[in-house]
Amino acid sequence: MLDVALLGCGGMMPIPGRFLTSLLLRLNGRFLMIDCGECTQVTLKMLGWGVKNIDCICITHVHADHISGLPGLLLTIGNSGRVEPLKMIGPKGLREVVKSLCVIAPELPFDVEIIEITDDTKDIKINDFKVNVLKGNHNILCYGYKIEVPRKGKFDVKKAKTLNIPVNYWSLLQNEETITHDGQNYTPDMVMGEERPGIKIGYMTDTRPLETMIEFFKDSDLFIGEGIYGDDEKIHKAKEYHHSTFSETATIAKNANVKKLWLTHYSPSLTEPEEYLHVAQEIFQNTELGFDGKTTIIPFPEI
Amino acid sequence: MLDVALLGCGGMMPIPGRFLTSLLLRLNGRFLMIDCGECTQVTLKMLGWGVKNIDCICITHVHADHISGLPGLLLTIGNSGRVEPLKMIGPKGLREVVKSLCVIAPELPFDVEIIEITDDTKDIKINDFKVNVLKGNHNILCYGYKIEVPRKGKFDVKKAKTLNIPVNYWSLLQNEETITHDGQNYTPDMVMGEERPGIKIGYMTDTRPLETMIEFFKDSDLFIGEGIYGDDEKIHKAKEYHHSTFSETATIAKNANVKKLWLTHYSPSLTEPEEYLHVAQEIFQNTELGFDGKTTIIPFPEI
Repeated sequence: MLDVALLGCGGMMPIPGRFLTSLLLRLNGRFLMIDCGECTQVTLKMLGWGVKNIDCICITHVHADHISGLPGLLLTIGNSGRVEPLKMIGPKGLREVVKSLCVIAPELPFDVEIIEITDDTKDIKINDFKVNVLKGNHNILCYGYKIEVPRKGKFDVKKAKTLNIPVNYWSLLQNEETITHDGQNYTPDMVMGEERPGIKIGYMTDTRPLETMIEFFKDSDLFIGEGIYGDDEKIHKAKEYHHSTFSETATIAKNANVKKLWLTHYSPSLTEPEEYLHVAQEIFQNTELGFDGKTTIIPFPEI
Repeated sequence: MLDVALLGCGGMMPIPGRFLTSLLLRLNGRFLMIDCGECTQVTLKMLGWGVKNIDCICITHVHADHISGLPGLLLTIGNSGRVEPLKMIGPKGLREVVKSLCVIAPELPFDVEIIEITDDTKDIKINDFKVNVLKGNHNILCYGYKIEVPRKGKFDVKKAKTLNIPVNYWSLLQNEETITHDGQNYTPDMVMGEERPGIKIGYMTDTRPLETMIEFFKDSDLFIGEGIYGDDEKIHKAKEYHHSTFSETATIAKNANVKKLWLTHYSPSLTEPEEYLHVAQEIFQNTELGFDGKTTIIPFPEI
């Protein structure tokens, strides 16, 4: 079961009721964040989930509206008593940007470990999350993120009994350890069923729509995508600044067969996203508007 | 007539309803800001005064809660179409900090001119404001600001007529220019009365109370001072972290004979400042609690 919280849904500048872009995922009490715009920690505080267990912050790109909340948040995490390292994932150059921003967060009680994305970046494991990235088409290097929660197969009690594996080893086998007992090796595959379907979340903003997104986000349980403008007539502005409109993102959602779409990263000029929701829904019915503090719980699929 | 707006009244971290520390002064359509914590521009947007005419940002010290909103605000000012240079005043080291933070605001359409305070810093003129600074007692170099609006004397029409100064020169003399007419020099002092009392605002947070504050802020129309804790029993924490309590700041306000005190820079642990207002008012009756978006208009004194 995965908790999802959209902390900020605004682009460019924070405005009343619409802070800058950030998403938070919570799984088994540990957090993964994507982007950290100004005011992120205000919604976080409102949510009441705490900050100490934020183990990883993924950055789509280093435009200010996606990272300006970072030094303040790192300080707050430091004040929460965290001492374990915190990972950050993002485009080439991220290390230098984080270092610069931390001029006002100089004495953190934990290390920040930076992973700069390369062409070989694949399947980064963060706790029980599996992170993959897709290059976008923006005016600086920008990535979308696919966060998966794989789910192991079921433990086959019958088989374990047949093989005479002592009960106290069962949980070790479930945790992918190999056991030697009475000169006999027991491996997880002997008692674990096939991997079951997990959870898949997609997040991508600040890009023109791309064919590659369709395969990458295929069948996601939730896709959080860009809605810089609702009005189709603003397509030329979306093109000029390398963003995506409601219609364009809804088309990606439809073609990728995602279960649900949340629109986010609204232009400050888009004062009433509600007026244009129907534009997206006519293309992809299961579209919802993101808003600061919007949460949902995504269960593992029933099988 | 001076407009004053407290944009953020929180210390340490921004929380719902209490953004980080910032004050804005508006005079004749031009702005001077003191401190720029995270979310400053959200209150600014709510206020609706615009951002283009922010000509100077004074920084008390470079702790994150006083400057974390800077890169975002500079970008927003840039998007407003400003091209005139913007001044910043602050402690030694400010230039380096601003440069580092601007890694995410790399292409501003205006110059940022930094004035680092030295022992000789005195009477900095920013439009019609006169800025002076006082060193505080914090755990890093920190300054309080006194912002004055001097007021010229009255133009003496009778004297100007007696001296036969042509009417079209009157406004030039009022603007402190010297006129030569028919071989005769006319200087402002010939027709301008004595300087009249102006407006004086004091702003100082993140310091232990100091004797020097009393003289420096003497007779201010408004003093905005620190209320990190309301409860006198937390004095040891205020001492440990170099801050001031409600009582301590109220004592300064009383001894400096200011007209009004606004408390600000509350600890996030001080969830209900209202509960302790009486503590300050018992020392200095004319104490008010600051809150985000609190505004007042200060007229020139009647004479």
